[in-house]
Amino acid sequence: MRITKSSKIIGIGILGLGTVGSGVVTLLRRQAAAIERKTGIRLVLKKVCVKSLTKKRAVKIPQRLLTTHVQDLLKDRSIDIFVELVGGIQPAKKIMAQAFQNGKHVVTANKALLAEKGNFIFGLARKHSKKLGIEASVCGGIPIIKAIKEGLASNTISHFLGIVNGTCNFILTRMSDQAIPFEEALRQAQQKGYAEKNPALDIRGIDSAHKLAILARMAFGAEVRFDSIPVEGIESLAVADIEYAKELGYSIKLLAIGKRHQQGLELRVHPTMLPLDHPLSNVRGVYNAVFLHADQAGNLLFYGKGAGKFPTASAVMSDIIDIAKRISGEVDLKAPVVSVPGKLKIYPIENMRSKYYLRFQVADRPGVLGRIAQALGKNHISILSVHQKESHDPRSVPVIILTYEAQEKNLRRALKAIDSGNFVSRKTVVIRVEK
Amino acid sequence: MRITKSSKIIGIGILGLGTVGSGVVTLLRRQAAAIERKTGIRLVLKKVCVKSLTKKRAVKIPQRLLTTHVQDLLKDRSIDIFVELVGGIQPAKKIMAQAFQNGKHVVTANKALLAEKGNFIFGLARKHSKKLGIEASVCGGIPIIKAIKEGLASNTISHFLGIVNGTCNFILTRMSDQAIPFEEALRQAQQKGYAEKNPALDIRGIDSAHKLAILARMAFGAEVRFDSIPVEGIESLAVADIEYAKELGYSIKLLAIGKRHQQGLELRVHPTMLPLDHPLSNVRGVYNAVFLHADQAGNLLFYGKGAGKFPTASAVMSDIIDIAKRISGEVDLKAPVVSVPGKLKIYPIENMRSKYYLRFQVADRPGVLGRIAQALGKNHISILSVHQKESHDPRSVPVIILTYEAQEKNLRRALKAIDSGNFVSRKTVVIRVEK
Repeated sequence: MRITKSSKIIGIGILGLGTVGSGVVTLLRRQAAAIERKTGIRLVLKKVCVKSLTKKRAVKIPQRLLTTHVQDLLKDRSIDIFVELVGGIQPAKKIMAQAFQNGKHVVTANKALLAEKGNFIFGLARKHSKKLGIEASVCGGIPIIKAIKEGLASNTISHFLGIVNGTCNFILTRMSDQAIPFEEALRQAQQKGYAEKNPALDIRGIDSAHKLAILARMAFGAEVRFDSIPVEGIESLAVADIEYAKELGYSIKLLAIGKRHQQGLELRVHPTMLPLDHPLSNVRGVYNAVFLHADQAGNLLFYGKGAGKFPTASAVMSDIIDIAKRISGEVDLKAPVVSVPGKLKIYPIENMRSKYYLRFQVADRPGVLGRIAQALGKNHISILSVHQKESHDPRSVPVIILTYEAQEKNLRRALKAIDSGNFVSRKTVVIRVEK
Repeated sequence: MRITKSSKIIGIGILGLGTVGSGVVTLLRRQAAAIERKTGIRLVLKKVCVKSLTKKRAVKIPQRLLTTHVQDLLKDRSIDIFVELVGGIQPAKKIMAQAFQNGKHVVTANKALLAEKGNFIFGLARKHSKKLGIEASVCGGIPIIKAIKEGLASNTISHFLGIVNGTCNFILTRMSDQAIPFEEALRQAQQKGYAEKNPALDIRGIDSAHKLAILARMAFGAEVRFDSIPVEGIESLAVADIEYAKELGYSIKLLAIGKRHQQGLELRVHPTMLPLDHPLSNVRGVYNAVFLHADQAGNLLFYGKGAGKFPTASAVMSDIIDIAKRISGEVDLKAPVVSVPGKLKIYPIENMRSKYYLRFQVADRPGVLGRIAQALGKNHISILSVHQKESHDPRSVPVIILTYEAQEKNLRRALKAIDSGNFVSRKTVVIRVEK
């Protein structure tokens, strides 16, 4: 069916082999063959710039691919996409400028640079007509930049609220769940590796403000002066306030807020009380989420892991694949790749396994429960709990049974036996239970 | 800054001018100029095929653009993108095949056709190397297809759970909230226009199974035989079961479930019990949501409006713009469009308005509350509620006040006065409240 052509080679250079960098190298290696099969594009890792050639790495990488000189990447004409993963303003800014000048497309996770020097960086991409992939800079594994720029391309976004810092959300969740003070929750976050030894950027809201600046640029098409964003962190929040808020029907979240008004933009980062039934109130632990209102599509929520090696590497890879597809003319990619027919066959429902909720309507007389339990047991179905309900009709009393995981085939056999008994007054209700 | 080129013209033909069709025409007209400014692409509506030339329309459209002959679109070489919005298997299938044969890219919201004849339709797109945009076929305004295919391009999706039918979710939410039987909740859905007069496709789970087949194809890269998907609807659910489930800590949702196993795919649609703290349990009313697990990015949730004129039209437009960008070589679109600097200025925080939570720590003596209330009143801040808390220290009793919306400037002025008084024992805690 596919028109096979010789693969197009796209060269990748990576600056920085820390957590995210080694995640990207791992994914590139693991997925290159599948990506080539699906897209006709061969992604080739050409060079990785590191600080030290001898340091032990989380990922195996041939020595010949390593260099300590970023110029080896910038001047390598076989590198089409330059992936910047060192972070910080300088020297990243200077290096990125040179990458664009040298005709490379750029993918970056550098939120500080994009937030504080965004006009400069986006201006360079435009000036040199190169792609700039920034999905990894906001909310890690959630494809929120793509959703805003492409998925909602025909929408005007009026406002958004984002939980964009997992460290702070973890701390606030712990404070709320365990009624422990900020310092103790921060210690727990540090123990779990969710917070840096120096957590200032996170807990003071700076990291959230960086992401706010980038989201505002994407959602509102606006240049944002980073230092004009009012920022408050979570470090002075008391458990008492979290508990009073709960009593009043609210959660407290550190939010990045962006609103578009006739007169201008309202941008701010601060702890915020949200009604408990607001979708963001249920975002717990290190998870991130962005709630936004688009004029055509309405309210939307995007939820997922905002940080971590592979969620962030997944976002970098998405940008790399996107740019590679776009610059290589992209053959037939809008139609998804279909696996070899028959390879993934559909299970017959009889083979499926699930927990079950069963409602029996039975006559209220001795021995009935025993007969149900026996029929279930015979068919290898274990009972998790039994709940007998009051009823005004003694001929039809509801008995609710939750089962452990069982096979649908066995359940059907058991119910056939039970439902044919004279002690049930109607067909048993079956609802499958998901974790 | 921008390199201006003469705009590239992309011709659009639309089959069907019902709810979604007239939404698309409205958006095309309203947004064409902005899209051209941003992308250098001029989207031109060439022809719309309708059943009747004289019917009154929700959207004004010049008579010369209307035709009752679909061949007028299919044979029009100025039409690059053919938008199919009539639904159903035939004649849509035949027409779409001809559109591809005639060299057109296709955008469709036709979930029945994609689910039941997907191999044929996707095969055509591949054979003719044309784009096939299907975002509008699943979950209306949620850009879930783009997220799966592009945002998560480097992920293997192991399973997903979707609330993909707003009608059923509305009915289940009403049954749960108001303890009313299915028939009454269905009647309410029909009154609100959420359910058709003949609601069979929705309540029997067929519509959900259509979307499941499409999602499974996208998420697992699998050909799916629609008629092998086990389907149960919600029409036999009793309020009692919803209430028992709640007591046991579960909600009941109609889910489209897809799981990838070594041995094959597990696909099914049925009412399902979910723990109340599962993200999908909080999806209420006509909203849709898809929860999925991706091997790199982790758990993700996408939430939004799954149906309706403009949410669905927004998805159609996203596909049209995507395809238009791709087929016109796409100049500098990866960098977002930046509005005229200064046009969207950032508010100073003093001008912002919010509701506030205020925690005063005050001496427990008469008149203190009066002095606080007076200071707030003087600065135009109205009190919504006052909560006095017990304290073991009579010198420092917490008083919590929720305010109506007020201006930050006024709040700061009031707090300056209050915090300088000798009746407060510490600086007042301020948390802003979002709706």
